[in-house]
Amino acid sequence: MTRDRELRYVGRPIPKMDAAQKVAGRAQYIQDLKKPGMLHGAIKYSDQVHARILSIDASRARKLPGVKAVLTGDDIPLIPIGFMKDNLALKKGKVRQYRDEVAAVAAINSEIAREAVDLIQVEYEPLPAVFDPEEALLPGAPLIHETDAKGGPNKSNRLKLPWNLVCGDVDAGRAASTHVVEDRFSTTWVAHCCLGASGCLAEFDLSGNLTMHSITQIPYLAQNDFGAFLAGLGLEGKNVRILSTTIGGGFGSKLDTHVYEFIAILLAHKTNKPVRMIFSREEEFLAQAPRQPTRIRIAQGCDQYGRLTFRDVDMILDNGAYTSWGATTPSVMMVPISSLYRVPNVRYKATCVYTNNLYSQAMRGYGNPQATFAIESITDQLAEAAGIDPLEFRLLNVNQPGEITPQRFRVTTCGLRECIEGVADKLGWAEHRKNPKKARGFGLGSLIHVGGGARVYKSDGHGMIMRVDDFGKVTVITGGVEIGQGLETIIAQVTAECVGVLPEDITVVKGDTSICPWDVGTHASRAAFVSGNAALAAGAKLKRKILELAGPMMRVDPKDLDLRDRMVFSTYDPEEAMPLDKVLRKAHFTAQGTVLTAEHFYDPPNEMLDKEFKGNLSCSYAYGATGVEVEVDEETGQVEILKYIAAHDVGRALNPLLLKGQVYGAALMGTGMALTEQLVLKDGKVQNDNFLDYKILTALDALPVEPILVEPVDEAGPYGAKGVGEPGCVPVAPAIANAIYDAVGVRIRDLPITPEKILAGLKKKRGGTL
Amino acid sequence: MTRDRELRYVGRPIPKMDAAQKVAGRAQYIQDLKKPGMLHGAIKYSDQVHARILSIDASRARKLPGVKAVLTGDDIPLIPIGFMKDNLALKKGKVRQYRDEVAAVAAINSEIAREAVDLIQVEYEPLPAVFDPEEALLPGAPLIHETDAKGGPNKSNRLKLPWNLVCGDVDAGRAASTHVVEDRFSTTWVAHCCLGASGCLAEFDLSGNLTMHSITQIPYLAQNDFGAFLAGLGLEGKNVRILSTTIGGGFGSKLDTHVYEFIAILLAHKTNKPVRMIFSREEEFLAQAPRQPTRIRIAQGCDQYGRLTFRDVDMILDNGAYTSWGATTPSVMMVPISSLYRVPNVRYKATCVYTNNLYSQAMRGYGNPQATFAIESITDQLAEAAGIDPLEFRLLNVNQPGEITPQRFRVTTCGLRECIEGVADKLGWAEHRKNPKKARGFGLGSLIHVGGGARVYKSDGHGMIMRVDDFGKVTVITGGVEIGQGLETIIAQVTAECVGVLPEDITVVKGDTSICPWDVGTHASRAAFVSGNAALAAGAKLKRKILELAGPMMRVDPKDLDLRDRMVFSTYDPEEAMPLDKVLRKAHFTAQGTVLTAEHFYDPPNEMLDKEFKGNLSCSYAYGATGVEVEVDEETGQVEILKYIAAHDVGRALNPLLLKGQVYGAALMGTGMALTEQLVLKDGKVQNDNFLDYKILTALDALPVEPILVEPVDEAGPYGAKGVGEPGCVPVAPAIANAIYDAVGVRIRDLPITPEKILAGLKKKRGGTL
Repeated sequence: MTRDRELRYVGRPIPKMDAAQKVAGRAQYIQDLKKPGMLHGAIKYSDQVHARILSIDASRARKLPGVKAVLTGDDIPLIPIGFMKDNLALKKGKVRQYRDEVAAVAAINSEIAREAVDLIQVEYEPLPAVFDPEEALLPGAPLIHETDAKGGPNKSNRLKLPWNLVCGDVDAGRAASTHVVEDRFSTTWVAHCCLGASGCLAEFDLSGNLTMHSITQIPYLAQNDFGAFLAGLGLEGKNVRILSTTIGGGFGSKLDTHVYEFIAILLAHKTNKPVRMIFSREEEFLAQAPRQPTRIRIAQGCDQYGRLTFRDVDMILDNGAYTSWGATTPSVMMVPISSLYRVPNVRYKATCVYTNNLYSQAMRGYGNPQATFAIESITDQLAEAAGIDPLEFRLLNVNQPGEITPQRFRVTTCGLRECIEGVADKLGWAEHRKNPKKARGFGLGSLIHVGGGARVYKSDGHGMIMRVDDFGKVTVITGGVEIGQGLETIIAQVTAECVGVLPEDITVVKGDTSICPWDVGTHASRAAFVSGNAALAAGAKLKRKILELAGPMMRVDPKDLDLRDRMVFSTYDPEEAMPLDKVLRKAHFTAQGTVLTAEHFYDPPNEMLDKEFKGNLSCSYAYGATGVEVEVDEETGQVEILKYIAAHDVGRALNPLLLKGQVYGAALMGTGMALTEQLVLKDGKVQNDNFLDYKILTALDALPVEPILVEPVDEAGPYGAKGVGEPGCVPVAPAIANAIYDAVGVRIRDLPITPEKILAGLKKKRGGTL
Repeated sequence: MTRDRELRYVGRPIPKMDAAQKVAGRAQYIQDLKKPGMLHGAIKYSDQVHARILSIDASRARKLPGVKAVLTGDDIPLIPIGFMKDNLALKKGKVRQYRDEVAAVAAINSEIAREAVDLIQVEYEPLPAVFDPEEALLPGAPLIHETDAKGGPNKSNRLKLPWNLVCGDVDAGRAASTHVVEDRFSTTWVAHCCLGASGCLAEFDLSGNLTMHSITQIPYLAQNDFGAFLAGLGLEGKNVRILSTTIGGGFGSKLDTHVYEFIAILLAHKTNKPVRMIFSREEEFLAQAPRQPTRIRIAQGCDQYGRLTFRDVDMILDNGAYTSWGATTPSVMMVPISSLYRVPNVRYKATCVYTNNLYSQAMRGYGNPQATFAIESITDQLAEAAGIDPLEFRLLNVNQPGEITPQRFRVTTCGLRECIEGVADKLGWAEHRKNPKKARGFGLGSLIHVGGGARVYKSDGHGMIMRVDDFGKVTVITGGVEIGQGLETIIAQVTAECVGVLPEDITVVKGDTSICPWDVGTHASRAAFVSGNAALAAGAKLKRKILELAGPMMRVDPKDLDLRDRMVFSTYDPEEAMPLDKVLRKAHFTAQGTVLTAEHFYDPPNEMLDKEFKGNLSCSYAYGATGVEVEVDEETGQVEILKYIAAHDVGRALNPLLLKGQVYGAALMGTGMALTEQLVLKDGKVQNDNFLDYKILTALDALPVEPILVEPVDEAGPYGAKGVGEPGCVPVAPAIANAIYDAVGVRIRDLPITPEKILAGLKKKRGGTL
């Protein structure tokens, strides 16, 4: 591993390369994209939650001047879409949720398209509906899908996607416990609230090849999905090219291909024109899929010394009416359930259930925040039951470098102890324990997350091509997706470092499936990890090629040459040097010349979970701890966060500025989920479809976040780095819930922790104690 | 060499891949490009032809609402530009031609920009001017440039760029000749008439890097030029990225970086906004640079058997007021002068001369049409003097495969005899000689041109990267420039053929210097030759990688596998096969996967001309012959072309459809140059700046072109191909001139051959004979 003091660009707080363009309003979002002859798409949504479609009358819409196409489920081939192939672009037969897409329009402008949508008349026959996932599992509950993806009959609303993990013997562990606590927790719908609303632009060339201008996080999986859809349209084997514009936030909302994208394809195919589909903010709330709600029953025990003996989790996930990739979040929820702290015996069962609610999907943390809310809440409860300080209880059970967890994760580096201790220290934990203040509370939450990729798909790979031009400028062609996290900058830093040029010499090319090699997508906090490793390997190849060209020119053995800051030099005599651009031009303009490229496909040596859901899912694991000090207003139930310490084991901070940006953002997102954010559904219908009623934290709510970076330098990571995109938002809710309990003795088990819930808790507590 | 019958896609008349997009109006030209906040540039041209600039008053323009910047030569650093660094983006001190750029405006729309330009007042002091290049060489002629590029004094208008070729002993050759003829020929300004008018869009990012949306034929040389210009602006070492939109015709007009492009850069830099500069059609005629006019003195002799003994050419080129790459066209004019037919003794001297005319540049054929007009006219004259039929005379002197010409060109294949004989046969030469019809005439013209690249720059190279995705779709990233000739289609055919997929599986990525490897540019009929060879090499590497992956899967030694039409199969048992996409997905989704790319830099083994202007400029030489039958109306002087046979030694027709397209287009362009096209200048000022007054041939003038393809299969070329982009227009004018002479006995030595000139010739002839 390169020593810190030798690093020139890695580890430096270099500002995001695209920041200036964004701040200056120059970045091109999907909303900025226009094509000659482009049509505007609009969707007719269902106003019924579960109903048979009796008839659709689109005749008035079709006659409206400026309308170029109106499509309903009857006008298109039956092509199942979605992760479990349980959805249709335009519904046929029945609707299963509000916002089900029943018709679509393409028109010369969006006003006409919207007006045409309003002219479409749909006649429904209402069906009984079910909104509670537990009720949905009862015999006799209305069946959302009569058949499964293969056409077989469904007997239940339970998804045929079981999640069962058993490590050790939970019953024996329970029997051997001195203390056992058991409780139920729940989390609700939380919206991603990307500031860039959803949209796409679909365009066919005259040979039937599709170009999709997209804001997806998974361009290559989307290419696959759209290709299969085209086959359903009779366009088997045509090229599908995904071009990405600037993405205004992802957070997991773009890990699926979405219905509006397939509708845009249908309209573009029908009209043979480019069709752009852009969501309004209200649509973004109503027709995008939020974080999957969970109901969690959790039991945990410890021995007389406070050492954890078992953890037993039973979880129900509200899938909503259709299935997204979010139905696989239990694969990542298993990470903290099996491996946060040392627990010898673990059992976890998750059931995804169809309801007539809005369908839900993955969001930052991929289920981990929901699971960790339960784990870290019950851990405080267990510490209390055992009479041990929650800080001490955590340190007693802390993970260790080198351990293999019950789920067979091979822990390489682990800075969890340093994180917890660092947080406690900065919070003033000891002082608080000695002199607690009235209505003030301290709370802790720890986290484990995948930090070295996560094999949730057949490949966890990342392809990269590098090229250096005559001027020593390096182009890095990457399959990675920049969703605002700063991937471009990280790639430039790593490339500059390992090739020996300056970060400003790097142009990162991304967002075109025809040009950029395959990558599984930006998710699982993997982007910097995989692309950094790919850049290291490709950069080493490129540098070797350069030095081999320079050797004969400089009459030095290439092995004795190095390249740094645009200068090739002899390692024996650094005065013996030649500028990179001169070397390159000389090599190029020699007879039969050359052009320098290098490539690498980095697929981390991690493992797909086996049939027992075990295996080393990630090459390294990220740890962290969040600690807060809160003050609770016992009159109003308002919670104020006075201190917020977030410690993260990041392996190595490739760029502390960007890394802290991730931590700040995650703190706000985690705190929103903890205290204020919820999509309110009434009988399946969203009640708060705007930023007045849906309360994300704003700049005015800025938290006093103090990040602590713990850098154990993990050998699996590029320059030792682990992923850090998601971790920050994982342990926030339990830390806050624990602090509130510490402050006023009220434990809230259902997110968000609203003032109403705190006041009710206080009332109940007083009622019980007065 | 692969046998014809084994070829699946090479040799097929596959329609141009981008044709449908263009016909349907979907192609995006520079005129279609819009950027948020974009400003519109306009140029104030000089209304004096040679004058001192006394003052420029831009105060009213600057005050006009909507104007964002007004620049004059006083507002910018002195940065010499152009091939000989004899030009400035905005003139300082004096103007040297009409259309000299004296000021520029950026405004919120083009109307305001144009209005602002009209408000700029320039005060001039006229200087004596010179418009005739021979007069410009006389002592005491007005000096256009007082100093040379290095700041040294200029004593003459003669460019410091001498062209002198001496092969053998011309004086001895002349002395040994039985017949000698000597004559003078001249050609004038001809406009490229690209249907897409000139334009560009310059844009700086907030770090000072330049993105230039351009329609250049030489993106990498342009990158170099613009980079040097940025250095002059204090932006040394910044990235310059050239992005190409669809190009609406090139024909050599885009081989230079042009003044308007530098002005766009200046305005973008000044305003920090994207600035688009678009020429009107009138500007295209007035402010673009046409084909270089020539005055040619030529002498040629033969022995008693009709065998050529010497050729002696002295040429003056009207450079105009500044110097473009066109000043190097003598390097290609040398090709026919030294090597069309077997001539043992050759002398050629060319002088480029500054005048106050519009500056001129290269155009299709790169001087060859001008040189060949003289050579093939005088060849008919010499045949007549020797009393030999011009067909027989040509066949007597025809080039042979394997010969080394006096300029040291190594002729590989040569189909000139077949071309001439084919043309004569189709024309009915023998019958015509027996029974000539009144006012009808037959004429021949032969050609030699570079057919295997042309090393006119340090590198004649072409870089290519190939990638195959999970679906077996191949992306070819090429440095080549598509200017409408069909390069994309040729690359797709060659790639499909050599990799073993279908042409529709290929996506050609081009037009982005950050992504695409280096290429010297589309010129010298080299694009299909170099990119085809690069594709063969890269494709072979890609195929080998694929077969190496498939081997273990299929349990067959990769050496015994082949790939054709998307199927990997055993060469021993073709039934043992596996679809390509399955092989690729299996390889990709194996642990630690793979992504398949291959690259190649092809730089042909041709030679830069040495100090004596000798060397094997090209890897192969293209030959051809054009024959016409004309009818001359002796009352009006009108010429009608009754037959037009164009035979071309193309090595191999990679795509006969596209190839014939080149031949048809060249026939019209060559006939236009011969009969109708001329930019009329009066005291340096263009008189015909529109398509009413400037007469290109239109669809209504369509010629009865019959192409003959001669395919000797040249080992240097991809599947045997030679370049064919320019040749078609090379021998047209002399063939027509010879036919007119054959019909009515009038020889026209000055292009275009207008009815007026023919009538004058007839009058003179009658005057002489009556």
